[in-house]
Amino acid sequence: MKMSQKRYLRLQPPTEEDFRDSASRIADGLFEEFGKIKVPVHTLRKLYPLCQKADWNVTATLSWDGGQWVLSNVEAADTTRENYGLAVDLGSTTIVMEAVDLNSGEVLASQTAVNGQVAFGNEILSRIFAAHEDPEILEAIRAATVDTIQSLIDGLSRELNHDLRYCGMMVISGNTTMMHFLLGLDAFSVFMSPYATVTRDPGFLLARELGLDMAGMVYIVPSKSNYVGGDITSGAIALGLTRSEEINVFLDIGTNGELLMGNKDFMVAGAGAAGPALEGEVIQTGMRAEPGAVDGVKIRGDQVELSVIGNVAPKGICGSGIVDMIAELYLEDILDFRGKFNPESSARVEQREGQLAFRYGDDLWFYQSDVDQFIATKAAAHTMVEYMMQKIGLQMEDVAHFYLAGAFGTHIKIPSGITIGLYPDIPQERILCAGNSSLIGARKILMDRSLLEDARKFVETTDYIQFGEVANFVDIMSAAQGIPHLDLNRYPSVKGWKAARKA
Amino acid sequence: MKMSQKRYLRLQPPTEEDFRDSASRIADGLFEEFGKIKVPVHTLRKLYPLCQKADWNVTATLSWDGGQWVLSNVEAADTTRENYGLAVDLGSTTIVMEAVDLNSGEVLASQTAVNGQVAFGNEILSRIFAAHEDPEILEAIRAATVDTIQSLIDGLSRELNHDLRYCGMMVISGNTTMMHFLLGLDAFSVFMSPYATVTRDPGFLLARELGLDMAGMVYIVPSKSNYVGGDITSGAIALGLTRSEEINVFLDIGTNGELLMGNKDFMVAGAGAAGPALEGEVIQTGMRAEPGAVDGVKIRGDQVELSVIGNVAPKGICGSGIVDMIAELYLEDILDFRGKFNPESSARVEQREGQLAFRYGDDLWFYQSDVDQFIATKAAAHTMVEYMMQKIGLQMEDVAHFYLAGAFGTHIKIPSGITIGLYPDIPQERILCAGNSSLIGARKILMDRSLLEDARKFVETTDYIQFGEVANFVDIMSAAQGIPHLDLNRYPSVKGWKAARKA
Repeated sequence: MKMSQKRYLRLQPPTEEDFRDSASRIADGLFEEFGKIKVPVHTLRKLYPLCQKADWNVTATLSWDGGQWVLSNVEAADTTRENYGLAVDLGSTTIVMEAVDLNSGEVLASQTAVNGQVAFGNEILSRIFAAHEDPEILEAIRAATVDTIQSLIDGLSRELNHDLRYCGMMVISGNTTMMHFLLGLDAFSVFMSPYATVTRDPGFLLARELGLDMAGMVYIVPSKSNYVGGDITSGAIALGLTRSEEINVFLDIGTNGELLMGNKDFMVAGAGAAGPALEGEVIQTGMRAEPGAVDGVKIRGDQVELSVIGNVAPKGICGSGIVDMIAELYLEDILDFRGKFNPESSARVEQREGQLAFRYGDDLWFYQSDVDQFIATKAAAHTMVEYMMQKIGLQMEDVAHFYLAGAFGTHIKIPSGITIGLYPDIPQERILCAGNSSLIGARKILMDRSLLEDARKFVETTDYIQFGEVANFVDIMSAAQGIPHLDLNRYPSVKGWKAARKA
Repeated sequence: MKMSQKRYLRLQPPTEEDFRDSASRIADGLFEEFGKIKVPVHTLRKLYPLCQKADWNVTATLSWDGGQWVLSNVEAADTTRENYGLAVDLGSTTIVMEAVDLNSGEVLASQTAVNGQVAFGNEILSRIFAAHEDPEILEAIRAATVDTIQSLIDGLSRELNHDLRYCGMMVISGNTTMMHFLLGLDAFSVFMSPYATVTRDPGFLLARELGLDMAGMVYIVPSKSNYVGGDITSGAIALGLTRSEEINVFLDIGTNGELLMGNKDFMVAGAGAAGPALEGEVIQTGMRAEPGAVDGVKIRGDQVELSVIGNVAPKGICGSGIVDMIAELYLEDILDFRGKFNPESSARVEQREGQLAFRYGDDLWFYQSDVDQFIATKAAAHTMVEYMMQKIGLQMEDVAHFYLAGAFGTHIKIPSGITIGLYPDIPQERILCAGNSSLIGARKILMDRSLLEDARKFVETTDYIQFGEVANFVDIMSAAQGIPHLDLNRYPSVKGWKAARKA
């Protein structure tokens, strides 16, 4: 059942014998299907004289609040065909909102905006510290978040030529810090031991309680822990992990890495620092995936073929390009299995700024330090996966699907991901991109109230590992710092691909 | 069980093994007694770092919301001894608020303020019309109501030297129009056929939703109909009518009269216009019960003895004085049984301004038109009672108690009330003053959640009579326009008193 419902009611107008109040008249008309409903003040204020003017032919919007249905709006005549809901991925950099037709499940429009919080620091940590030290900054960050969400409601309203402020439901997925800031809560505890946050499950709120100009309810997808946020819970739901018979792995890797493993009967979650390399920012010529960014690399001997976004002259390299680059360098023996440049291997390898570097374009260099940074990150990711599998007693063969979340996962070539050891060496069709699974999960919950139970179960029963606290983590990580791994036998495919280049 | 509870919790501080969020940690500590609780945003915002600083020894305030308990406040250390609630009688002229110690049930302090709405008209009808015509006036009336309630919270806080904004619960009783204005609702339907109002049972709201600066919940006592408001529901609860084995009558008479009759098994309510005479305003020398007002009259022949409030020279006459006056004039044969002055009966009866009048002091006259006005009102009240008793098939002997509500009921001498036929001729100990039963009911509900069920049952099962619509009402009323009644056999006591004067 959808989280917001519309019903057209043709009610008997009041008489002196039947002088029930307007709110009860509507509630009685909905009782059989929805039980005892709640009528908030803002809806009461709409009833008179709207109902009288509409001769009591009205459409009720009902929003689930976790325990009962709330009458969030009443409109004259039959408007049941226009039943819209909003799904939101509340990211620390960007906020994405979809307007969903709740009758069909179709996404009618989607808009993205820069989260107004960035005015208080690009780094999430700098925002946390600023908010912690000054309640006024916390309030400003909260207001900026709400303003950005409101601007998306307004933008989508214009795009669809329909006032979405009367939506019955918005589902928001975001990490634990974003959840705190949206609620105006100090998020200091998210990053400080013992990582006991203020809330993990704020549940349902009237949109007005959050300061949004919207009639309906907001549901905030719950988080498991400080690092395994509502975005991950939502991702698990998006991918059907909570209902799958088979065992799946879900990896969301960025500055922090979050990892899920399990099926409908068990789930293990973990999180740890991964490093910023996958986001391209610490690579010297790294850049976002925008025109001029190298997003594909092919190397044969001294020949380098680049794929460049927008087909313009290359200006730098983005995440998927970096993965390709390291894979190709390794397969061409320009990097060895420890990830070190072999200065004899190519005329393109030169000494620059005190280290070796590979020239991949005019004045574009890929440095030894770039490789090192990247390998540290992929090793962290690999190690999380391997540690958790050991802990559970799983083999890679047991894994039905290996999902990689986020924009990064969307563009990486799977063989390159395997070659550098970011992905496990499993059949390629089992490695899947999860897309914006935070958003997709929000949309799915909007369409199906029974998924609230999945979210609850996920949060309550998932086992949690804080990787930073694991004793033998560093040992496993050392072995993962080879390309693809110090134990090449784990990567038979890569062994074969390498042999094929030499043949 | 009280509507708001406090519990002192000594919780285990979080560790990396037990990283439950602050809200869950408190909720878990309360689960066994209170089940799954709700934590609103304003409470979430208080938790950090309050709980940490208190080393997790905190006091939770829980407020019932009709379906579950809401964590409306958290304080450091053990504050359970300070558990206060607020009871409010929301009158159209004055608002009375009591601060109640929920541990003992004791009323700690009480304050009264003029309802800020009077700035928009002394007459309730003029406010209704003004608000109906202009939404900005409706909003101003709403804000004025809330401001007055807030000023009482603040005033009581100062008196008790305790910040009552952290109270867990406020119970408000008021008539249907007051309920509408408090919620910002157009009350036009209260006075317009078919009298189907916007709401009769708004139930529980966060005080913040009403615009009050208070942490807890507000419960608004439900109304039965447009005229039988929450103040009457509350009155029925105050007097225990909903739980009584015996049959009681409850009359609240002012410009409008409201009447209840019944016991725990049945209840009949009615309402109708009574006229403003009982409030003294249309009597030519009528005034409020303040210094200088005659509140008692004794007449023997040409001798008049007055009791004056403040023991000063008389300036006018208030409600209880008027009842005494008419009773004495009748018993002394200065008024006949039709309520007409006998010009021969006393040297004090003179022709003035085209009518007969009785001089009760220096330049103080009680006119024939005053008598007529008053008798019309008491006849309306009498007729409501008689009509309803006929309808139910009750005799006066069946009535255990006859309650008169309001300030008026408090001061009238019972024999005088019987003599003029305002009260029935039943044993005097069965005629009781209900006091501010609206306020008393609010306080009782505050102390005992099980009375919510009484309120629900009262509203749902009471039969309702709109007296204006009754066919033989005028016939009954004509007979009631005598003193005490055209059928003196119904008033044997009065017959006796009159005979005693002549003896």
